[in-house]
Amino acid sequence: VKLLTLARDLQRRKARERQQLFVAEGVRTVETLFASPLTIRGVLVSATGAASERGQALVVLATARGVPVQQVTDDEFASAADTEAPQGVLAVAAIPRHSLPPAAPATRYLVLDALQDPGNVGTVIRTAAALGVSATIALPGTVDPWNAKVVRGSMGAVFSHPVVPLDWAATAAFAAHAGVALWAATMNGDPLELAAAGRGAGALALVVGNEGAGVSPHVAAAVTRTVCIPMAPGVESLNVAVATGILLYALQGTPSGA
Amino acid sequence: VKLLTLARDLQRRKARERQQLFVAEGVRTVETLFASPLTIRGVLVSATGAASERGQALVVLATARGVPVQQVTDDEFASAADTEAPQGVLAVAAIPRHSLPPAAPATRYLVLDALQDPGNVGTVIRTAAALGVSATIALPGTVDPWNAKVVRGSMGAVFSHPVVPLDWAATAAFAAHAGVALWAATMNGDPLELAAAGRGAGALALVVGNEGAGVSPHVAAAVTRTVCIPMAPGVESLNVAVATGILLYALQGTPSGA
Repeated sequence: VKLLTLARDLQRRKARERQQLFVAEGVRTVETLFASPLTIRGVLVSATGAASERGQALVVLATARGVPVQQVTDDEFASAADTEAPQGVLAVAAIPRHSLPPAAPATRYLVLDALQDPGNVGTVIRTAAALGVSATIALPGTVDPWNAKVVRGSMGAVFSHPVVPLDWAATAAFAAHAGVALWAATMNGDPLELAAAGRGAGALALVVGNEGAGVSPHVAAAVTRTVCIPMAPGVESLNVAVATGILLYALQGTPSGA
Repeated sequence: VKLLTLARDLQRRKARERQQLFVAEGVRTVETLFASPLTIRGVLVSATGAASERGQALVVLATARGVPVQQVTDDEFASAADTEAPQGVLAVAAIPRHSLPPAAPATRYLVLDALQDPGNVGTVIRTAAALGVSATIALPGTVDPWNAKVVRGSMGAVFSHPVVPLDWAATAAFAAHAGVALWAATMNGDPLELAAAGRGAGALALVVGNEGAGVSPHVAAAVTRTVCIPMAPGVESLNVAVATGILLYALQGTPSGA
């Protein structure tokens, strides 16, 4: 019952931080985890999960890799699961420790300022990874990137894209030291068409803010530049993940994939 | 109990189509509905909703506008509600009938090809409205735009942005007749940096496809051009709402809001 107890315990952020472990749930997420370089501590399957074809394949893979597998009842599994209709497969893995990668002229960083919806944060991390961002900084007040919903929402992007928890002072110090310009997305920033003219200007970190409150006042006051996406009259705002995608795309240093 | 019965009935797509009515749920959504030109048939409040400050304000507003208000118990309200923790306010309103707005050189249309997640479709419609798209066409297989989750996810954008259900033959005929170029987002389309060179080329309709399967083969075969967003190696895909936001932004005929 040890892995089951551990998985249950890791539903709490404090436990994840103390143990430096997290839970990846769902067949596809666990498949992606096994394809990543992360250290996997164990796999938990329910009776239903063990009976499914992809569940069985994961059990075979885990066994071949020397990863402990434990089977539990569907009810036991549900007590550790985050989803309402669990597929019956989860894995416990070590939270990777990343430092911020160094800045070259085309390097882009993303800074999350108190983003609170796990689905949004997962989508934002997936987007950052897809658009060639080097690392994402999670400022205090941001939902834990190792929350099960974020992990799932990122489609496993958190397994390879560096997400670094840092406070604003350390972020600003890094930017100053590494020669990284700090920009923030705000409602009344420079319209992006004009701002985008600045692309190719060097390393850049883009700060995006909380779903309701936006970027914190002390952050907005400290950045080099604020930008916004021009919107049609009468429309209040874009979803934060959509806005982040547009901004990261428009501010790319070089075409991603190049 | 008539409004309660009606609201319950409108949980089914067939009922919405037959009656040409839909349900908008939640305080903010109903506030946005009252600020829109749509015809509101009635407001249903639960005991909890009626006791809240914004709920009371909505009852006053409805009464002043001559809209019938009915109060029910929390349990009765829950039976008609789509959310798990209802705020206790919903409204029944008439589905607006839009025809496709005419094409000018900078006009943009969005075409949804069998998008199935209501949250994605809501976010996509909100994004289209924000980025100045003239109308969104919902092809067969796309989730009903008047589904309660879509309405809520659009943050009320469906109340003003024209969403037109149309089949592919009618869409292609409209495009041919109105001189609108049809482009589709596919995994192996022209990378967007190059494709975007075509902007300003005239009226454009962008087709985005199903979350898993992408654009239907018969649609992809019929469009003038396919485009894709260049992605970092090892990343499979972007969320469909994020991808649509980036594509619509990059393909704008004129800066939105201009």
